[in-house]
Formats: sequence, structure tokens, C-alpha cells
Amino acid sequence: MRILIIGAAGMIGRKLTARLLADGRLGRRQISHVTLHDTVMPQAPAGETIAVETVALDLAEPSTAGRLIAGRPETIFHLAAIVSGEAEADFEKGYRINLDGTRYLFEAIRTAGGGYRPRLVFTSSIAVFGAPFPEAIGDDFHTAPLTSYGTQKAICELLLADYSRRGIFDGIGIRLPTISVRPGRPNKAASGFFSGIIREPLNGEEAILPVGEDTRHWHASPRSAVGFLLHAAALDSTRLEPRRNLTMPGLCVTVGGQIEALHRVAGEEAVRLIRCEPDPIVARIVAGWPQNFDPHAATALGFATVERTFDDIIRIYREDEGI
Amino acid sequence: MRILIIGAAGMIGRKLTARLLADGRLGRRQISHVTLHDTVMPQAPAGETIAVETVALDLAEPSTAGRLIAGRPETIFHLAAIVSGEAEADFEKGYRINLDGTRYLFEAIRTAGGGYRPRLVFTSSIAVFGAPFPEAIGDDFHTAPLTSYGTQKAICELLLADYSRRGIFDGIGIRLPTISVRPGRPNKAASGFFSGIIREPLNGEEAILPVGEDTRHWHASPRSAVGFLLHAAALDSTRLEPRRNLTMPGLCVTVGGQIEALHRVAGEEAVRLIRCEPDPIVARIVAGWPQNFDPHAATALGFATVERTFDDIIRIYREDEGI
Repeated sequence: MRILIIGAAGMIGRKLTARLLADGRLGRRQISHVTLHDTVMPQAPAGETIAVETVALDLAEPSTAGRLIAGRPETIFHLAAIVSGEAEADFEKGYRINLDGTRYLFEAIRTAGGGYRPRLVFTSSIAVFGAPFPEAIGDDFHTAPLTSYGTQKAICELLLADYSRRGIFDGIGIRLPTISVRPGRPNKAASGFFSGIIREPLNGEEAILPVGEDTRHWHASPRSAVGFLLHAAALDSTRLEPRRNLTMPGLCVTVGGQIEALHRVAGEEAVRLIRCEPDPIVARIVAGWPQNFDPHAATALGFATVERTFDDIIRIYREDEGI
Repeated sequence: MRILIIGAAGMIGRKLTARLLADGRLGRRQISHVTLHDTVMPQAPAGETIAVETVALDLAEPSTAGRLIAGRPETIFHLAAIVSGEAEADFEKGYRINLDGTRYLFEAIRTAGGGYRPRLVFTSSIAVFGAPFPEAIGDDFHTAPLTSYGTQKAICELLLADYSRRGIFDGIGIRLPTISVRPGRPNKAASGFFSGIIREPLNGEEAILPVGEDTRHWHASPRSAVGFLLHAAALDSTRLEPRRNLTMPGLCVTVGGQIEALHRVAGEEAVRLIRCEPDPIVARIVAGWPQNFDPHAATALGFATVERTFDDIIRIYREDEGI
């Protein structure tokens, strides 16, 4: 099986790549070839028996998608996007990459010919939902986003469903929770502090908390996110009809609950490194985000997190990142 | 006030034009100028004091939208679309006109400069919803369309909400019920028979009924549709935040109920002209369409139909068309 990962240099892309190369198979099928794409050249993990090709191309360039699918990968993971904060700050760039780039990909598959019909796993986001919300968002709650990022993801979900219904590809959109704890440096996501308040203190550094401790949010570990992607890629898609975009399971935790978990796992010293510094811009964006879900459709299809508590999420971070 | 009607040659566009020119004002403001656009040259009603300009241009041509808004109309009615049956039959044409054309319009407004921020009324459709449905579809039910037409309308709704949230224009999307009774000849809409089974018998002609009599659907008269458009154009849009796309009120009637109304209004002779001829393609499309709504948000904002029964709908058709 040939696999294409679009947006492979991002955090989830790197972890997905490592997992696929370690497993050597996807579902029941052996992997023969992996193409890793990003705008910057992705690193090809060394010493593997699977052929790994890396390409650095701009997906918002109309010719890119056709080049990416030239080898007719049977499975495509489309993870590429600019994040919420950047899509809000740069209207044109957000639409160009998050919407037009995705549409170029879908069109390249449509016009490829020769009966080409890959499985396409698209990472959407809980940002497709906007306030006001019910206590827990069900599977048929409307996607009324309050950010341009959420709008772009919601549009791609609609396109994915229509292209799949038409038989152009076999798509599944998975709405990832906020991924915690993100390793590395902060990115431009407005949700960055959810990881920052855990990651920085564990590293002996100060972290800024821009919102109140009563802020509830929907979390999953990077390990769970990779699990969702693999499950989506191997799923019997006849079970999806007619709903191909699914909210992934996660943990509903308040910022206060995160801080308590940090206290249990790393002690008072770590918690003292969190500094409250209210940021009305971040607070306004986060206030429009969903807090809690009832992801019944996804759990019925076998999607599940590997963690049960936010303590688990912190432990997974330490294990996976060797911290 | 300057008004632009995009898609003015269609049935709703012609009725909206006639009403605006007869009223001479929109809400509290006098109308000074109306631009009527369509792909075919719209007819300019004669003998009016308001300046009426007509243009025939393809909205899917990137330069068209900029030319249409060159006079900086304060109110834009965007009615242009190819209908559901045609959008399903011609994938590329549907996306080019119903999605790209709308996006060109939105982008032309965004890049117009000079603080230009018109009211933009967009006609969406109940086709943004797809089965399975609850007994009555509420205002926060998800838009999971089962046609390309519905997908295109749902995407335009998302764009309208985001562009409005950004302050680019002051948009409102109204999801029209199926308009009954449509005058004139059948068009390519898969919903055409809902009107045909009334219109043709009233005209002494045979009508084909391609679905079962238990098929329930959501109807409004053309007169109500024009009323919705005018109400949307004059509404205080601060009352819309943050939801700018609204399901319009209508009547939930079965095909059997339509036929009974025809019997009451026009007698047995008319009903005998309806011939059942099941069409599995039409039946499949219609089965994915919504049947009943609870359009609470729209009614709270003052949107209302002028008819109370399907008998009224037939009488309005006869009055308005002189039949």
C-alpha cells in the first residue's frame, strides 16, 4: 500500500509517520511506500525498509496536488492547514491554504482518471462549532463557526462529504479535539496555552494563562490523535453513510482541572510557574469554542482515546517526549 | 438607495423587481437606482420613475462581480444559482456558478475599499439539510446535504457568516422553502413536480407525479418568498448575531394534501389530470430532502408567510398569474 501524508512536517504528521513506519502496515495491509509532503521539507526517518519519499511543495499552488497523487496512493492523510490564530490574522492566507489547497487536492483526485478512488482522511477540528452551545454537543449540532479557521474546516467537511457521495474518493473527516500536550515550542494557535500551561512548567519555565480557570475544553493526547487517524484510514467506510464527518472523543476538562492534574503529576513547584495574564483577544476566541461533546457516532464506530484522565495526558506527554 | 439584484431574470428575481419598483422604497428608504443582472438580459419593467439598468454577464467569470458592484449598491440580492437537478447532473457547472460565482462576489466586496459594506441578502435553500431528520428540523440542526446543490448552498452560508463576522458586508442568508406554485414552464429542479401537479392541471394539462402521495415537503408561495427577501433586506442586523443563516417559515404539506387542496379549489376534473409515474432518481433525491421545520429564529425576527393553507397557495398563484 502506498500512503501520502500531506502536512507531514507538523507535530501530528511526524508522530503519524513514526507510527506507520514502526507498524509497517495499515489495518491488514503492508505499507510499501510513504510520501511525506509539507511546505518545508519533512524529515525522512532513517533506517526503515519502507520506501520514504519527501517533497516540499505549496499545496495552495494549483499544480501541487496533481504531483502529490501522481503515484496513486491508496491512502491519503490530509493534515495540512495553517492554524486558527494565523487564519484569523491573515484572511487571505487562511482561505488560500485551508480552503483552496484542499479543493485543489479534491479536484486533482476527481480528474485523475483510471478509476482512482483513494481513502482520504481529513483532519477537521472542533472549531467548526460556534457558541451558543448546548451542555454537550451532539452529532447533529450545526457547524456555525466563529473563526475563519473553523469556517474553512467546515467548508472542507462539506466538500469531503459531497465528493465522497459522488464516489470521487472515499473520505472521512475527523474533528480533532485540542491536542494536549503539544510538544515543542508554542505555535500560533489561539489554543496554544492549553498545552503551554503544562509543557512550560514541566520544563521549569513560566507559562502564561490568558483565560479563566473555569474555561472548559475538549482534549486528546497526540497518541490518541494518531490512533484516530489510523482507525479512520482502516475503517469500513460503508458504516459511515451518509455522515462522513465525525467529532472525535476526548476529555472535557477545565483549565483548573488541568492545573490540578499538573499538581498531582509534578507538584506545587510546577503549578507556581503558571502566571495569569488575561488576554481579551484570546478569551474572545476561546469563548466561541466548544467545551463538551457527546461524540456518539464516533465511539459507535470504535474511535476511542487512550487516556482516561488529564493526568494520563500529562504522563503520555512525558513518556512520548522523554521528559 | 441603490439596489443590485443578481439573478434577476429568474422567477423570484422578476417578482422581487416588480415589487421593489411598485413600492418605490425598501424599508424606510427611497430607491433611486436598480441594477438587474442575469446571464441572459433581464427585462426592464417599463414606465417607472426609478432608474433601471440591466446587465447580462456570467457571474462565474472572475471580473463580473467587480463590474456589478461598481456603482456601490447599498443592498444586494444574490439570487443567482443553477438549480438542484442541474447541479447534480453537471458537477463542474454547479460548483463554478453556485460556489465560485458567490465567492467572486464576496471577494469583490472585500477588495472594493472605501468602507464599502452593503447589506447582502443571499437565497439559500432547505436543500442544505439531509436525511436522516428529526420530526421537525430546529435552528441548530446540522447542514449535512445529500446533493451537490445543497452542499454549494451550505458552503455559501458559511462564507456569508464569516465575511459578515469580519465586517466585510452585512449578510443574511435565507433558506427558502420550495416555492409553490412556480409559474411558467418546468425548470430542471428535482422539486419541479411539487408545482407541476398544481400548475398543469389548472391549465388543463396532464402532470406527472414521480413520488408517493405521502411525500411531505416544506412550501411557501412566491409572494411569501418576495416578502422574506424584503424583510431580510430591511432587518436590523444586530438582531442576527451570531447566526446569519435562517430557515424561512413555510407550510408542511404532503403531496396528498396538495392534491386535496387542488380538489377543493379546482374540482375533480383538475385532479384527474395528475398521472402517477414513479421516478426512482427523483424519489431518491427527494427522500434526502427535509419535510418539516421549526423555524423559530426566523419567526422571532418577524419572518412570516402570507398563506396559512395550501389552498391559499393555489389562490395566490391564480391571483398573481391571472389564471
